[in-house]
Amino acid sequence: MSYNSDYIERIRRANPIVHNITNYVTVNDCANILLAIGASPIMADDEEEVEEIAGISKALVINIGTLNQRTMGSMVKAGKKANNSGIPVILDPVGCGASNMRTKMTLKLLEEVKISVMRGNASEIKSAFSIKGAKTNGVDASFSDSKDLEEICNVARDFALNIKGVVAVTGKEDVVSDGMETYVVKNGVESMAKITGTGCMLSSLTGGFIASNPVNAKTVSAAVATMGLAGELGYSKGMGTGSFRVSLMDMVSLMDDQVLKEGIKIERFKG
Amino acid sequence: MSYNSDYIERIRRANPIVHNITNYVTVNDCANILLAIGASPIMADDEEEVEEIAGISKALVINIGTLNQRTMGSMVKAGKKANNSGIPVILDPVGCGASNMRTKMTLKLLEEVKISVMRGNASEIKSAFSIKGAKTNGVDASFSDSKDLEEICNVARDFALNIKGVVAVTGKEDVVSDGMETYVVKNGVESMAKITGTGCMLSSLTGGFIASNPVNAKTVSAAVATMGLAGELGYSKGMGTGSFRVSLMDMVSLMDDQVLKEGIKIERFKG
Amino acid sequence: MSYNSDYIERIRRANPIVHNITNYVTVNDCANILLAIGASPIMADDEEEVEEIAGISKALVINIGTLNQRTMGSMVKAGKKANNSGIPVILDPVGCGASNMRTKMTLKLLEEVKISVMRGNASEIKSAFSIKGAKTNGVDASFSDSKDLEEICNVARDFALNIKGVVAVTGKEDVVSDGMETYVVKNGVESMAKITGTGCMLSSLTGGFIASNPVNAKTVSAAVATMGLAGELGYSKGMGTGSFRVSLMDMVSLMDDQVLKEGIKIERFKG
Repeated sequence: MSYNSDYIERIRRANPIVHNITNYVTVNDCANILLAIGASPIMADDEEEVEEIAGISKALVINIGTLNQRTMGSMVKAGKKANNSGIPVILDPVGCGASNMRTKMTLKLLEEVKISVMRGNASEIKSAFSIKGAKTNGVDASFSDSKDLEEICNVARDFALNIKGVVAVTGKEDVVSDGMETYVVKNGVESMAKITGTGCMLSSLTGGFIASNPVNAKTVSAAVATMGLAGELGYSKGMGTGSFRVSLMDMVSLMDDQVLKEGIKIERFKG
Repeated sequence: MSYNSDYIERIRRANPIVHNITNYVTVNDCANILLAIGASPIMADDEEEVEEIAGISKALVINIGTLNQRTMGSMVKAGKKANNSGIPVILDPVGCGASNMRTKMTLKLLEEVKISVMRGNASEIKSAFSIKGAKTNGVDASFSDSKDLEEICNVARDFALNIKGVVAVTGKEDVVSDGMETYVVKNGVESMAKITGTGCMLSSLTGGFIASNPVNAKTVSAAVATMGLAGELGYSKGMGTGSFRVSLMDMVSLMDDQVLKEGIKIERFKG
Repeated sequence: MSYNSDYIERIRRANPIVHNITNYVTVNDCANILLAIGASPIMADDEEEVEEIAGISKALVINIGTLNQRTMGSMVKAGKKANNSGIPVILDPVGCGASNMRTKMTLKLLEEVKISVMRGNASEIKSAFSIKGAKTNGVDASFSDSKDLEEICNVARDFALNIKGVVAVTGKEDVVSDGMETYVVKNGVESMAKITGTGCMLSSLTGGFIASNPVNAKTVSAAVATMGLAGELGYSKGMGTGSFRVSLMDMVSLMDDQVLKEGIKIERFKG
């Protein structure tokens, strides 16, 4: 697929504020990756202020990584405010399926907030889709455990149609669909799974991309490819995970559209 | 201005406990920078224990970066205890002006706790001063948006007189005033703004400095210069932000009074 | 002492889920060190979900570093669930003795949850043992402040017998006892104390070790030695603390049983 755009240049020119309600494990990395790509992160999660903060932002990232009672209401409030303001909402349903609380919260967010982009691993996305589908389309949690790429592409596409947004499923190969177009992104290295928060970082990074670019499968694919490519450029054989984490951040901060254009490995899925 | 002191040596000799009630985004960096300069960080924010912890500490740093209902009461309680114990309190009013909640909390802290040092960027400090001034002196939020150095020096001086403490306004050039003396510190590199938490780190670092040194504009200027100089020494052209963040911490840990003396760029402002 | 085992290989083969209820200062490092050793960290602390999460895990790490009202109940609930599921619980009583709240919580956990491993510094462990002992054996907080190695070995042994588990006391020399056998581990470098969270990281790392290996003094000693040895291998003279922190993580991720076997410095204490 040809790739020719100025996604990153547009972020750096606009320096958009991206509001994150996220977990306390990877929040520092999320803030730093947004700065690295040229956005302005704001982390604010108290119910009393999230609407105001969403109101001055260009995108909202909701990540349920350390979900707790204190911020559940904040997520819904901020999401609704974002919807009313016309800014996109990214949902990272961390651990959806691992606990009822997370599964229920994912469903609640999908029901009460218009989600522009869902970003998770195959297990989280399948779990989220099965509960969402079960409620709305009679589809139940009968996915096989197969990691089959074609199945993931179909889930991503159907889920995207269901939420009228973009769904990104990351794993060995990443799949991004907006229901109309489905892409497979093949950037990245396996060692990224050995650093906590590469998923969370990607969700926040995606917030930066869609804050300054059209919300569609191409933009989200560019975010996904940026993360993977930074991993490829930053990794060298025998590297420890501490150094790789530093190097990954370096490569995002040094990334530009030219480097991305040359390094992106993306194919259109014809399902 | 001549600079000749043993600020850092005094911290390393005393290894003072510095109590931080801070945000969950940059808290790890705040702890590490205090260790790097020779202090002992304690992060404790529950209302049930903050007075005890403040009671064994030599300085208290209050940072409202991820302010929430759970810790608002803790901040006031710890602040009052610090006042009663005679230890200095540093306030970093992160995001003051960005939400009513933060603005109100900043005002509450200024009214109920004797603040020894305020450290923020121009927007936060102006916002804090305008609300504080409005209550006490009839000054309202009529500052122009000018980033004019002279104006910032005047705000810092007036605010310092108002709170009978030290005010540090950081930005391209940093301004520190205790009402009597106002300094402009010209250390630092622009890329520091691309790492989350350099402001928070400086506030905690300042806690280390005033835990073991007199609370005045000179001491706070030394803290501000230490941070900026570490940035200068740690930065090299083309460096990614991941590496720069590591290197900044390195340079604080390797800093001593001799390096600071040779690298500090400080001028007295004659307003 | 001869050392010959496959502790690390077993972790990497099993990739066990380790549930952490921990503090927000060092949580990212705790997650990364578990990934580095080959385990799968989950950080989850809300009372509504901790039992479910503990139920899918192979070990539970409870760390009271930023203890607060919100998670006190979660710690007890998760601990009881872990006990019922037969998975080991590691307790890191950070700051036990520094505030009544932490001391009381440590006691509560020791009374309501079967703790398999306690890991703390001498001051924390003595404080915990004195209150525990006071309740159950009439021993009061009359330890001298002596850092005497023999005394620490005796405390570790007696405490281990008292809780019928393993007690690890880390400091210049580390002591690990399960009541029957007591080991002194002499790995590590002093600069590790200049990085926040090396203790917390060790507690989480220990969670990884006992998730896939027998719970006894030898296994915990292997975890303690792994951390210390990573410090030795990662440190070089004149290194700043930012770089050392990265390098420490590198060395854990590159560690294997052969390197550990060659580098471990361990002696049996004959008290």
